[in-house]
Amino acid sequence: MGDYRVVFLPDNKEIKVPEGTTLLKSAQSLHIEIHSICGGKGTCRKCHVQVASEGFLKKGVRSSSDNLSPLTSIEKEHFSEEEIKESYRLACQVKVHGDVVIHIPESSRLHQHIILESGRKRDIKINPSINNYYIELTAPSLQDQRDDLRRLTDKLQEAYQLGGLTADYQLLKDLPVLSRNADWKMTAVVCADKQIRGIHPGEKRHSYGVAVDLGTTTIVAYLCELDSGDILSVKSSLNPQIKYGEDVISRINYCSQNNEGTLHLHESVIKVLNELLEELCAEAGIKLKEIYEMVLAGNTVMHHLFLNINPNYIGRSPFVPTVKKSLNIRALDLGLQINPGANIYLPPVLSGYIGADVIAVLLAEEPYLKEEMHLIIDMGTNAEVVLGNKDQLLTTSSPTGPAFEGANIKYGMRAAKGVINKLRLNPQTLEPELTIMGSDENILPQGIAGSGIIDAVAELRKAGFIDQSGRFNKKKESDRLVKDSNGHFQYVLAWAEETLIDKDIVIHQQDIRAVQLAKAAVYVGAQMLMKELGIDRADKIILAGAFGNFIDRENALVLGLFPDCPLEDISSVGNASGDGAKLALLNREKKQEADSISANIKHLEKSTETTFKDNFLRALAIPHADEPFPTIEHLLPENNK
Amino acid sequence: MGDYRVVFLPDNKEIKVPEGTTLLKSAQSLHIEIHSICGGKGTCRKCHVQVASEGFLKKGVRSSSDNLSPLTSIEKEHFSEEEIKESYRLACQVKVHGDVVIHIPESSRLHQHIILESGRKRDIKINPSINNYYIELTAPSLQDQRDDLRRLTDKLQEAYQLGGLTADYQLLKDLPVLSRNADWKMTAVVCADKQIRGIHPGEKRHSYGVAVDLGTTTIVAYLCELDSGDILSVKSSLNPQIKYGEDVISRINYCSQNNEGTLHLHESVIKVLNELLEELCAEAGIKLKEIYEMVLAGNTVMHHLFLNINPNYIGRSPFVPTVKKSLNIRALDLGLQINPGANIYLPPVLSGYIGADVIAVLLAEEPYLKEEMHLIIDMGTNAEVVLGNKDQLLTTSSPTGPAFEGANIKYGMRAAKGVINKLRLNPQTLEPELTIMGSDENILPQGIAGSGIIDAVAELRKAGFIDQSGRFNKKKESDRLVKDSNGHFQYVLAWAEETLIDKDIVIHQQDIRAVQLAKAAVYVGAQMLMKELGIDRADKIILAGAFGNFIDRENALVLGLFPDCPLEDISSVGNASGDGAKLALLNREKKQEADSISANIKHLEKSTETTFKDNFLRALAIPHADEPFPTIEHLLPENNK
Repeated sequence: MGDYRVVFLPDNKEIKVPEGTTLLKSAQSLHIEIHSICGGKGTCRKCHVQVASEGFLKKGVRSSSDNLSPLTSIEKEHFSEEEIKESYRLACQVKVHGDVVIHIPESSRLHQHIILESGRKRDIKINPSINNYYIELTAPSLQDQRDDLRRLTDKLQEAYQLGGLTADYQLLKDLPVLSRNADWKMTAVVCADKQIRGIHPGEKRHSYGVAVDLGTTTIVAYLCELDSGDILSVKSSLNPQIKYGEDVISRINYCSQNNEGTLHLHESVIKVLNELLEELCAEAGIKLKEIYEMVLAGNTVMHHLFLNINPNYIGRSPFVPTVKKSLNIRALDLGLQINPGANIYLPPVLSGYIGADVIAVLLAEEPYLKEEMHLIIDMGTNAEVVLGNKDQLLTTSSPTGPAFEGANIKYGMRAAKGVINKLRLNPQTLEPELTIMGSDENILPQGIAGSGIIDAVAELRKAGFIDQSGRFNKKKESDRLVKDSNGHFQYVLAWAEETLIDKDIVIHQQDIRAVQLAKAAVYVGAQMLMKELGIDRADKIILAGAFGNFIDRENALVLGLFPDCPLEDISSVGNASGDGAKLALLNREKKQEADSISANIKHLEKSTETTFKDNFLRALAIPHADEPFPTIEHLLPENNK
Repeated sequence: MGDYRVVFLPDNKEIKVPEGTTLLKSAQSLHIEIHSICGGKGTCRKCHVQVASEGFLKKGVRSSSDNLSPLTSIEKEHFSEEEIKESYRLACQVKVHGDVVIHIPESSRLHQHIILESGRKRDIKINPSINNYYIELTAPSLQDQRDDLRRLTDKLQEAYQLGGLTADYQLLKDLPVLSRNADWKMTAVVCADKQIRGIHPGEKRHSYGVAVDLGTTTIVAYLCELDSGDILSVKSSLNPQIKYGEDVISRINYCSQNNEGTLHLHESVIKVLNELLEELCAEAGIKLKEIYEMVLAGNTVMHHLFLNINPNYIGRSPFVPTVKKSLNIRALDLGLQINPGANIYLPPVLSGYIGADVIAVLLAEEPYLKEEMHLIIDMGTNAEVVLGNKDQLLTTSSPTGPAFEGANIKYGMRAAKGVINKLRLNPQTLEPELTIMGSDENILPQGIAGSGIIDAVAELRKAGFIDQSGRFNKKKESDRLVKDSNGHFQYVLAWAEETLIDKDIVIHQQDIRAVQLAKAAVYVGAQMLMKELGIDRADKIILAGAFGNFIDRENALVLGLFPDCPLEDISSVGNASGDGAKLALLNREKKQEADSISANIKHLEKSTETTFKDNFLRALAIPHADEPFPTIEHLLPENNK
């Protein structure tokens, strides 16, 4: 009985299988993926393979149809006479009774895809930079004096046609003892850069990587199984740099004002990342050393601080980063406690304001692959705006100020427990109905977040409490419309006794002004890009960023945050930056896409011309002084009289 | 007045010089080396240059002979009319009075050479892997938003045609602050692998590297100025691994018998290297961070231990190393406290017995470049024998045992203070005359080193105390020929009262036997290689290794350590391995030569055939049972009767 040898072409991979194994199973054991929706029942009939011409010799294996089980009735029914003559078979139907050489047509190949469920469902092609290869080496002898490394690279070349391989130094330390203890049966971990990064005894199916979304406020890390795309564990933490400043500007200031300031911020984030990595590995039951790749996306300042590069000059004119291009750095250099030879990939940054996080959002949304004109807005202290499709990409950054992050707003605060993140005015009573973040149903509000602020201004506008210019309408009668000690109007969202802070939570006239300045900056950014491309409307509007998940699309339109668009074409994608990092981790082609974006995207600076200022002034109106908003115009009071 | 611009072709390097500067001086300021033996006096007439055709435009500089001082009488006398028409000048004679473009013919170029004085004088071509490039960048502006790194690589491309450059991560950390503090005037340190390794403010002339000869017993480190080849400092230390075993076999045993044994040995050598590096830098007044390259040569076990690779399998059949090929590893990976991005280069090893130290000896002796057939013997516990010339190289290793290192010899010891390293028997009195190592003239001997043992056996043979078979001649009358308690003969080199150990220092019959076994192993190794090439005699015999400096060539021939050769063609080169490491540090082409040696050298294993055993038995005789030794036959007593 014994084992038979099956060689698959064009992969040129070989496996020994016991008598009676199907070709489908043989291929799967080699990680060659063949279409087989029915799971081998013979019903989907997708798993076409072809027996190599009679007598064809490959790797010492002579092809012969005689060494396979005869055609089944399913195959006879499915294939044409000609196909049968050309030795086509269904891989799930054929059993191996001897050595054979099999060709797998491209049409039968499956490039594995998975669905990523986070901000939105995404179809991901699995093609990681790190792959595992199982090999069995022959032991050295007096006749075969090749050194251990050469033995390894020769076999990888022979078995998998991996040429020009080099080895990471760290691997050499394991090589002599591990290979002998494993009786020369081992799995090599090989990176797309042709470097062998590690070896493991016996057969090791999985390799692991980590995607990190390094936000100014929050760090999220995802542990992924690279070969399947499965996310094994997710851990997050506040960015510990917060204690040196809440926003990027104050962190830059800390670095410029303190000797070793950059080093402190760098070390603090590395420390937390190492803690997250340990938690990820503990939860998944793997070793830190098994992590061979990390993809990290963050804005330009987070990117520089992660790298221990002083961000001082990003914060002052002419706002130039130290490095823009994508980087591959070894874990050892950064003090990350994963495999010391692991590669840390950082997507390129575009400018001081448009960081690797924006590239990651684009990798997730892929406007550059699509016909539809996409308007992508990543909201934060700066709003980064991208407009484009497969033909072109434009970007600009709009200095919105921190209003949407809750700063400069009387009762504004960051999204956290107890914050009002949604609200509406009851159409009948005009009383506010608040949605408060937190699991406790009886939780009392203590402030208002960016999405809540947008809702508040839009709801006040719809109800006629404020007019197009953003001013409170004195004539509107309501207990909630009150004056502060200086005689300025404000609207009470929650009375003191309903709040955690025992003070009325209000929207002040100045808050509305701050929101108007912020939203006008976003609007004119988008408008400038659209004008540059000569279009009136984007086919898709995509809102990414911190409060993207909570934002009310209709209210954003009422506010005039961006040009009019049917609601169904507006979507919120939340943390698309983290998704982009995961995509780059799971599919190496995304790294090329990132470089291509960076090489081809056109960066528009705001012009200082009069027309621009004029556009800005007109964009201060809610929703706009003169641009049409057909999608929401029926909601405005002046159209409802 | 101001400065004028001078562009040199084909380098395309530019410099601004004050009115009246000579072209020779201008070129030298750019580190362009021009033949000028007389130092610019106009007497050697080597410094030919050519003014580019009238009006030729390069880098915005228009060529014009009018901008140079007129022909001097020296030039008029030296050049032909045609050469004058073609605008040839002597660079030392011409003064600059305006912008000009100058072409330097290849024949005028000087590839700098230095003489290395150590084991022997060596002519070294200076062409290091690390070079410094001075550049002045334009500061970023709102119009020029290139990032700092791009700014740097663009300028290196523009000024020095260095394309495809990448940057070591470690450099990025310095880039933003250093470049601005230096007002964008800086020196980039660029490696031959196209990687920028470091930057320094302003103009930095020198770059530094370290060559290390990592011996089983001694570590010697040389700090070199890479651009001049000057050796700034030399430091040495005992190999701290000695406490885990004197020879490689006992260190291998330590590694196989102790958990973390390899790590201990590795860490001990790294620690001592870091101490040596600090001493080197302190003496030369430079910073550790300024060292950008290290070349390290050692035998295969030292090589593996330096790399923290378990050498266990080198010590047992089939004696296979973990890695043979040349390696380039970053200092950070090895914990060496020089620039973390510095490259540690290790020449290839050939086998478990023929290490990178042998390659280094070959790099120093360069038999592969020469017509003469070289026989190179690197003595140690194993003797590595290489035979060859530019057409071919053969090698074998001969297990001499530790006799030549003083072990297995009754009063043998390692070369150290108080050791007898040379001796002769006074031809008249037949009394021994000892040379003792150490500065103190009245020092008393305590043992005998390898070179002394060779002398002793050869001198005893010449004086007829022992015969061709190595046995003591009982009939020889001398107080010094005595019997031990078992009735075996021994010869007293020093009486107890003349020694530090208060015991007679003797050469015992068994010592002579051990020397015979060792020398026969070397002899038959050389003989096997010569037979393979079909030659009777080598044109040059080169003795390298620990006692190479002390060995008496004539006595080595009397002993029959290697086949006969005229004395003038035998040379001792001492620590040629250290020289080879220095050569590879100073001239990058040596690294290619090392790979080429490793690819082309033929490794002969001792055959187990009867003829080999027979050859060995015949080689036990002193000098040999039947091979002729015309060079020293007149010294043998049987020919002096």
